[in-house]
Amino acid sequence: MKNFYDLAELSIDEIESLISQAKWLENQGSSNLLQGKVLALLFLNHSLRTLTSFQAAMIRLGGGTFVVSPEMSIHKLESRSGIIMDGTAAEHIREAVPVIASYADAIGIRAIAPHKSLEEDLRDEHYKELCSFSDISVINLESSIHHPCQSLADWKTLDDLTVPRQGGKFVFCWVYHPDAQPLSIPGDTIHMAAARGMDVTVLRPEGFGLPKEIIERAETAASLSGGSVTETNDVNSGLAGANVVYAGSWSSTSCYGDHSMDQKTRNEFTNWKLDESWFKGITRDSCYFMHALPVRRGVEVEDQILDGPRSVVVKQAQNRMYTQMSVLLDLLG
Amino acid sequence: MKNFYDLAELSIDEIESLISQAKWLENQGSSNLLQGKVLALLFLNHSLRTLTSFQAAMIRLGGGTFVVSPEMSIHKLESRSGIIMDGTAAEHIREAVPVIASYADAIGIRAIAPHKSLEEDLRDEHYKELCSFSDISVINLESSIHHPCQSLADWKTLDDLTVPRQGGKFVFCWVYHPDAQPLSIPGDTIHMAAARGMDVTVLRPEGFGLPKEIIERAETAASLSGGSVTETNDVNSGLAGANVVYAGSWSSTSCYGDHSMDQKTRNEFTNWKLDESWFKGITRDSCYFMHALPVRRGVEVEDQILDGPRSVVVKQAQNRMYTQMSVLLDLLG
Amino acid sequence: MKNFYDLAELSIDEIESLISQAKWLENQGSSNLLQGKVLALLFLNHSLRTLTSFQAAMIRLGGGTFVVSPEMSIHKLESRSGIIMDGTAAEHIREAVPVIASYADAIGIRAIAPHKSLEEDLRDEHYKELCSFSDISVINLESSIHHPCQSLADWKTLDDLTVPRQGGKFVFCWVYHPDAQPLSIPGDTIHMAAARGMDVTVLRPEGFGLPKEIIERAETAASLSGGSVTETNDVNSGLAGANVVYAGSWSSTSCYGDHSMDQKTRNEFTNWKLDESWFKGITRDSCYFMHALPVRRGVEVEDQILDGPRSVVVKQAQNRMYTQMSVLLDLLG
Repeated sequence: MKNFYDLAELSIDEIESLISQAKWLENQGSSNLLQGKVLALLFLNHSLRTLTSFQAAMIRLGGGTFVVSPEMSIHKLESRSGIIMDGTAAEHIREAVPVIASYADAIGIRAIAPHKSLEEDLRDEHYKELCSFSDISVINLESSIHHPCQSLADWKTLDDLTVPRQGGKFVFCWVYHPDAQPLSIPGDTIHMAAARGMDVTVLRPEGFGLPKEIIERAETAASLSGGSVTETNDVNSGLAGANVVYAGSWSSTSCYGDHSMDQKTRNEFTNWKLDESWFKGITRDSCYFMHALPVRRGVEVEDQILDGPRSVVVKQAQNRMYTQMSVLLDLLG
Repeated sequence: MKNFYDLAELSIDEIESLISQAKWLENQGSSNLLQGKVLALLFLNHSLRTLTSFQAAMIRLGGGTFVVSPEMSIHKLESRSGIIMDGTAAEHIREAVPVIASYADAIGIRAIAPHKSLEEDLRDEHYKELCSFSDISVINLESSIHHPCQSLADWKTLDDLTVPRQGGKFVFCWVYHPDAQPLSIPGDTIHMAAARGMDVTVLRPEGFGLPKEIIERAETAASLSGGSVTETNDVNSGLAGANVVYAGSWSSTSCYGDHSMDQKTRNEFTNWKLDESWFKGITRDSCYFMHALPVRRGVEVEDQILDGPRSVVVKQAQNRMYTQMSVLLDLLG
Repeated sequence: MKNFYDLAELSIDEIESLISQAKWLENQGSSNLLQGKVLALLFLNHSLRTLTSFQAAMIRLGGGTFVVSPEMSIHKLESRSGIIMDGTAAEHIREAVPVIASYADAIGIRAIAPHKSLEEDLRDEHYKELCSFSDISVINLESSIHHPCQSLADWKTLDDLTVPRQGGKFVFCWVYHPDAQPLSIPGDTIHMAAARGMDVTVLRPEGFGLPKEIIERAETAASLSGGSVTETNDVNSGLAGANVVYAGSWSSTSCYGDHSMDQKTRNEFTNWKLDESWFKGITRDSCYFMHALPVRRGVEVEDQILDGPRSVVVKQAQNRMYTQMSVLLDLLG
């Protein structure tokens, strides 16, 4: 593996090998497997889990990290091509990325495009341009359309909880969020569950259907694994029999990039907020609640869910560290 | 020891064992005793010494740290319970703390409440709520009412300087500060000196008596160690014969939480600023000057004291690192 | 070597020994040569390369770093002497520097004075005062007048590219920059090239002659090494036969500290922007382009140069890490 960009680029065997190595690393504790190795972390967007879990992962493997983010005491970075830099930005990413990469053994990059064009975001142009300036291994810390570190951690979490593959029902449920959220989590999560062999239901209001490229990608994975993918706006049938409800939000694809229209469309569905009543009709002893975090309490989900026994959101977050250690070992070991 | 919250929770033997281990670590230099171990550092308030000394401590022990603070490139954190998160904060501490803790072997937390209610602050509710979200060892990096890392370092500093225990006179002297300062340093410092067996004098203007809970706690320690605790507003008798003058500031307990009244009360005592004239009547060859830092030069203390031979403020700060290494070894070794 | 302040304080043998050690470290990869050692990094000005390359260097040597910069979650620092600290700054560098130094084995300091007086800046008073508060080794991360880490890296880069010493022509070319830039890079770069034995030409517009102290220092080095130093405003003769064109900017020495006059003077020379036409008359198969970065694309230099084959700016930046590892090993090994 040269880069870690999208789980769909890996075979099921490769994914399972990464997860099995992650479990071994979890049991083994700290080691010197990456002694003296350096991971650069470049954040063009905010982070908490990714930032801290990668730092912890490298310490546990005997190496270290350095972080570059726009809020730090660095020169303001310019990312537009062909620009005359007579404004406040003192350095261009065309220098910054190769320089940072020249100090490191691998680089992680978070770069979510500013949500203007669905076509551009589906092509992940912003992230891919940044990667083109690095000649070392790049780890995708979240781009406009992918978040493979989250999906690999979620796969391990489902395994840890012995959630069934074939015949297991995985519901990805749209919830209201005050801001337009990117397609990375919903797109990668339904692909992951489909690739794992589960029956995936995307439950969302009218107007929030996922782009067909994203659905087709999950369907392709399902066809190989024996899983399935369906979309619905019917809450009762959507949730019935679910083993897992994974909540997330994304902006309406019908008015993608039109922020005021998107806001207006979303504001009609503030009642898409999960509480225990949503789980009533599931008729299954245990149905887990998952979320990639951060989550807005009382807006996306009620406290009773997050603080209750079905929530495994902290387990998901913790598995970020173990699965990322596994990816790092593959790239740098 | 599971958590390091308050020096008063430890026996004198336990404190002396931590200090003796700190001296051993100081002489030994770097080691691999905590190889691959991770310390999370969560700051909800500013820091310089605590931030840097813990980072250095973990490097010297072969492990590492990661830092989370509100000024970083992270989501804004919400800490109020039961809130509907439709504002700017994207993540709640109920997720952030357990997630951060899940990456670490121990977590340090600095959380000083916003100085509203003396009763709440004496109960240290704000800090204790944050701790309740962690299932790993927590180190108190300063709460509303305690700063055990400073007190342990100060104890070692007094030992290093061979300041006598029984019969040694320790003066904690209130000085003017433009801002309302918390009770953590004065409260923990007089307890520390009393527990060490010294005769403690709290010298402060009228209206700045320490809360009786804090005085009684120091008196209890004094009764076990053979020390004593008195309060006075008489500068001459207060300072006479002192081995140590420790300067610090706190807001008036008579109008705690009433910021304009507190400001007005404090502004009557801008002349409580230490210079050499304060040390004239001490009639002792060497009387040390101590301060937990940061210190406002020319406002709390004159430069002549800070730059002169009686000041041991840098030694105090340096001992933060060695005593914290000792605490880390006890918690994680 | 106790401190690393200015390359001119080292003999040619000492410089070559540092560079030869840097090449050995580059080939050797990571090691445990500085296991458990701590480098403090104090930035009073922005940084990207210095910040990240020193962090990476210490990880590769088995040690670690901690960073203090004004944008961090620390108390605001005061640096004026004899001041009454009743404003927003909560801590003075007279405490902050010795405290930070007390946690570390060496400290790096970046402190560029606010460009008011040429005489003061030539004496480097601001940086030297900060150093006086440290009793451990200090590495100059860029002061008003020196940037030895950059010059040592540039020397190695010239060696790596087998640029000739005796008879090699090194042109330092002034380029337009919207802001007044310090004298550290031009001054140290021409000294470095002269000390390496090259024929140095300073090419700049009228009114931008370098201070005579800086020229004389380079001339002294040239007289020992067999090199030479000349200044010119004639672009054609200045560039003719160059092996290397190193671009940089500095404020007019004729109106140093007078920001509006300096701006006005600089604005007459916005056409001093390097593009391929500047290299036409050089009549040499390969002429390298160098720059210390950050560089403003389309303002100082056109993209075609930076993205073309003659640019070695990323190599220069990468050599920062290897040469700094060498300096660290000398100071701490």
